Amino acid sequence: MIVLTGNGKGKTTSALGMAFRAMGHGLKVCIIQFIKGSWKYGELESAKRFDDLLDFYVMGKGFTWQSENLEEDIKVAREAWDFAKDIIKSGKYELVILDELTYLIKYKMVNEDEIVNFLKNRPEGLTIVVTGRDASKSLIDSADLVTEMVSIKHPYDAGIKAQKGIEY
Amino acid sequence: MIVLTGNGKGKTTSALGMAFRAMGHGLKVCIIQFIKGSWKYGELESAKRFDDLLDFYVMGKGFTWQSENLEEDIKVAREAWDFAKDIIKSGKYELVILDELTYLIKYKMVNEDEIVNFLKNRPEGLTIVVTGRDASKSLIDSADLVTEMVSIKHPYDAGIKAQKGIEY
Repeated sequence: MIVLTGNGKGKTTSALGMAFRAMGHGLKVCIIQFIKGSWKYGELESAKRFDDLLDFYVMGKGFTWQSENLEEDIKVAREAWDFAKDIIKSGKYELVILDELTYLIKYKMVNEDEIVNFLKNRPEGLTIVVTGRDASKSLIDSADLVTEMVSIKHPYDAGIKAQKGIEY
Repeated sequence: MIVLTGNGKGKTTSALGMAFRAMGHGLKVCIIQFIKGSWKYGELESAKRFDDLLDFYVMGKGFTWQSENLEEDIKVAREAWDFAKDIIKSGKYELVILDELTYLIKYKMVNEDEIVNFLKNRPEGLTIVVTGRDASKSLIDSADLVTEMVSIKHPYDAGIKAQKGIEY
């Protein structure tokens, strides 16, 4: 299991790059994005070129975190996590990317122990990549490889807006 | 300009993910790998699915850094950098990735000021991504976005070997 965390850019793109690399070896990959809105369509468009190897699911579409309807948010997060569990158990993939999963733990949408224990007991031969800020200690403890992306400099600091094609 | 540095995994994969995302928007991308050997063929295989948008060059093939023939190494590095300059000046791309370029500076294969000044004066509308450990201060100073990939945990520490499809 690989965890990509930290406040810097590069977590999701690194996971996408791992998918890109893995698919070059013919490995089957599933990407589940937990909170990305539909505006991040760059990777979805490119994914279409790998429809023999890649399944790509955007779970967060249409719901915002920390909305006023906490109960509804928890329900949607719960369903997203249950979906991810089915994907992992399916045995169909060699690489499963759980993009921004850490937020489900951070905002206590899904029980942390349940997530960590489930990921620990993943099928043999399956690599799981978890991305998102503020990865919890128990998630890091159960991972094999952890990289923290640290922001050294960011253009938003200088008033530059997000660039289409680069950041989304 | 984006610089991805640090001792952690995720620099090259993040650059590949940025390419994946950019190509989803139809942007033209060029990737130049400066020191990867031909064994890292995962990304090369996947790149073939984007032959309308992506040019991928491996410059370091067949030569080792810090070999006994320093003069020959400098000559090859110099040619690789000249090739990268032509690519950047060509105006054919919206994104150019210079993977592991930092080593040319670190091992003083090519003059640092020359590289930094050339990258500073890149064509308008072109995003350049530079990856590699130990990015120099002047390279960081001239970048718009810098992320340091910090290794928190690495499976080699536990005696686990590199995994095909994930790390190469």
